[in-house]
Amino acid sequence: MAAQAGSAERPTIAMAMGDPAGISSELAARLLSQEDVRAAAAIIVYGDRRVIEEGARVANVPLDLYVVSPDSALPGNPAKPVLVDLGNLDPAEVAMGEATPAGGAFATENFRQALRLAAAGRADAVYFTPFNKKAMRYAYPAYDDEIRFVSDVIGFTGHTREFNVLEELWNARVTSHIPMSAVASTLKQETIVSELELTDRMLRAAGFEKPRIGVAGLNPHAGDGGNFGREEIEIIGPAVKTAVARGINADGPYPADTIFVRAKNGAFDAILTMYHDQGQIAMKLMGFDRGVTLMGGFPFPICTPAHGTAYDIAGKGIANLGASRHAFFLAVRMASRKPPS
Amino acid sequence: MAAQAGSAERPTIAMAMGDPAGISSELAARLLSQEDVRAAAAIIVYGDRRVIEEGARVANVPLDLYVVSPDSALPGNPAKPVLVDLGNLDPAEVAMGEATPAGGAFATENFRQALRLAAAGRADAVYFTPFNKKAMRYAYPAYDDEIRFVSDVIGFTGHTREFNVLEELWNARVTSHIPMSAVASTLKQETIVSELELTDRMLRAAGFEKPRIGVAGLNPHAGDGGNFGREEIEIIGPAVKTAVARGINADGPYPADTIFVRAKNGAFDAILTMYHDQGQIAMKLMGFDRGVTLMGGFPFPICTPAHGTAYDIAGKGIANLGASRHAFFLAVRMASRKPPS
Repeated sequence: MAAQAGSAERPTIAMAMGDPAGISSELAARLLSQEDVRAAAAIIVYGDRRVIEEGARVANVPLDLYVVSPDSALPGNPAKPVLVDLGNLDPAEVAMGEATPAGGAFATENFRQALRLAAAGRADAVYFTPFNKKAMRYAYPAYDDEIRFVSDVIGFTGHTREFNVLEELWNARVTSHIPMSAVASTLKQETIVSELELTDRMLRAAGFEKPRIGVAGLNPHAGDGGNFGREEIEIIGPAVKTAVARGINADGPYPADTIFVRAKNGAFDAILTMYHDQGQIAMKLMGFDRGVTLMGGFPFPICTPAHGTAYDIAGKGIANLGASRHAFFLAVRMASRKPPS
Repeated sequence: MAAQAGSAERPTIAMAMGDPAGISSELAARLLSQEDVRAAAAIIVYGDRRVIEEGARVANVPLDLYVVSPDSALPGNPAKPVLVDLGNLDPAEVAMGEATPAGGAFATENFRQALRLAAAGRADAVYFTPFNKKAMRYAYPAYDDEIRFVSDVIGFTGHTREFNVLEELWNARVTSHIPMSAVASTLKQETIVSELELTDRMLRAAGFEKPRIGVAGLNPHAGDGGNFGREEIEIIGPAVKTAVARGINADGPYPADTIFVRAKNGAFDAILTMYHDQGQIAMKLMGFDRGVTLMGGFPFPICTPAHGTAYDIAGKGIANLGASRHAFFLAVRMASRKPPS
C-alpha cells in the first residue's frame, strides 16, 4: 500500500479535523505548522479552510497549506500538507464549548472522507483530532465508538480492537464495555489467543521486533493458585501457552496489581488486560491523557490523541500538543511499514 | 485507654519484631534509634535481645533500650524503649533470606505478646515489622492474614478491615480475596454502608475532621447510566445516600479509572473500592510499598509497613526506613486519640 500511496520513504496520512467546539482545530493548525510533522509524511487534511484558519489564529501559528476543492485531483507527494476544503462549516456558526449537530456533522464527514481515502489505498494511515461523542451521535445516531463507525464506513468485519499507547507501553483488553458480572463468563481461551495475536501484529507493525506481551490475570493475586478463582488455570494460562506455541512472546498471567508496576519499569512492551478498568486505572494514573488511542486490526492504522476535546480550554491557545504529536508519529511509524496481513 | 496506658501526651506502642530472615530486625533497630520515634511514645518491644542487636549491627546504629525479662513488671512511662527479651531466637540459627518454622514461631510469639498487652489496655496501639506469610504458616497453620490472626488471639468478632494508607490517601475495599466472578453478587447495600462507617471512623481516629470518602463504581464508566451494569444504580448509589444521611462525607459512585487520578490531586482522603485490584492496581502504581497497612476496627489500631520482608536485601543494611516510620507515626497518631467506640 505504501508504494501506491506516499513515496517509498514518506507515507501518506489522511487527517480528519475533529470537533470544532474544542481544541481540535488549534491542535490541527499547530501540528501542521511543525517542520518535523510536515517532513514526515504527505498529509491530506479533510475539513474547512475557515475552521482551520480560526484554529491557526487561536494557536498563533502560520498556516501554510495547499488548499484544494473536493473535486480536484490530489497532488502526488506534495511538498506541503494539502487541505481538502469541504466547505462544510462556517466557524462563525460554532458555539465554542458546546456539542452541536453541526459540529458532529463536520467531524463525521471529515472522518468519512479520510477513511475512504485510506480504504481506497491512497493513504497509509488515518489520523484525527479529538471528537465529541455527543456531537457525533447527533450526526450519526448509531455512533457507538470509533471502531464501530470505521467498520460501518469502510465495511470491515475483521477482528479489531482499541489499543491505548502511553509512550512505549501498550494496553489492549479482552473485554471492554460490559458489566463486571459478565466478565468472567465472557473470557474464552480462543478470544484471548486471538487478542494476543492482534496485539503482537500491531506492535510489530509499530516496529517492535519481538514484542513482550504481559498478560494480566483476572482474579486477585491472579487467583492465588486457584484459591480465589480458576480462570487463570483453566482459561488464561492455557491461552498464553497456545500463543507462545505460535511464536508470540506472551508471558503470564500475572497479578493485575503488580503487572503495571513491572511494565512501568520496562518489563513489557504491552499488557493484555481482561477487563476495562484493569488497564484503564493504571494507564490513566500513569498519564494516559498524554497518550495515544490506536484503532487496530483495520487494513490501515487509525490514530488519535487519547485526550478529549477539552471544551473548558477551547479557544485559549493553551492546549498541549504532546499527545497529538505522539499520535501522528505513531501513525507515520505504522504507515511506513508493510501493513500487517 | 490512653490514660491507663501511656501518659496523657505520650501513648504506649506495643511493638512486635517481625520475621528475622529479612530486613525486619534492622528496621526495628534503626527505628528505635531515632530521636523523634523515642520521644513520640513509650515503646514496649517484644523479641529477642540477640536478634535486635544483630539488627543494630546490620543497620549500623547504636541500641539504647531497657531490657527486661518477660516476668518482670514493665516500667511506667519509660524514658527509653523497653525490650521484653523473650529469649526466643538465637540469631546464629537464622538462615537469612529463608522462611523457616523458627522464624515464624519467633514472629507469631512477639505479635501475640504485643496484642495481649494492648488487649489488656496496657498499650494504645500495636506496631510490627514485616512478617513472612510462609513462615507464619509454619508456626500457625491457620494463619490466613493478620486480620484473622489478631481476631483469633484477642477473641475479637467485630467488623474489621485492612486499610492501605499511602501518605494522606487511604484505601479500603468492600470485597477482597474472592473470585472476580463472585464480586457483583457479593456487593450488598448494607455492607457498603458499614464499610463507609468503618472507614469514616478510622479516618477520624487518625485526625481527619470530616473525611472525604470517594466511592468507586463497579462497572466500566461506573455503569454508564446502566448501560454496562446496574450495581451503581441499585446498590452502590443508594448505599452512598444512606451513609450521607448518617453524616458521612461520602461521594460517588465514580468511575474507577478516574477516581484515583482525582484522589491523587487531593479530591478525597479515602477511596472505598468494590474489589481487591480496583484499589491495589492504583495504590501499587502510586508507590504503596512506601505506604502503611492498618488493621482497622479492632479495639486498638495495628500498623505495619506495607512492604514485605525483602529477603533479597536482608543483612545489607540498605533497607529504606520510610514506610516503617510512616506506620509507626500513624500508630502514634491514632493511639493519641480516644479509641473509636
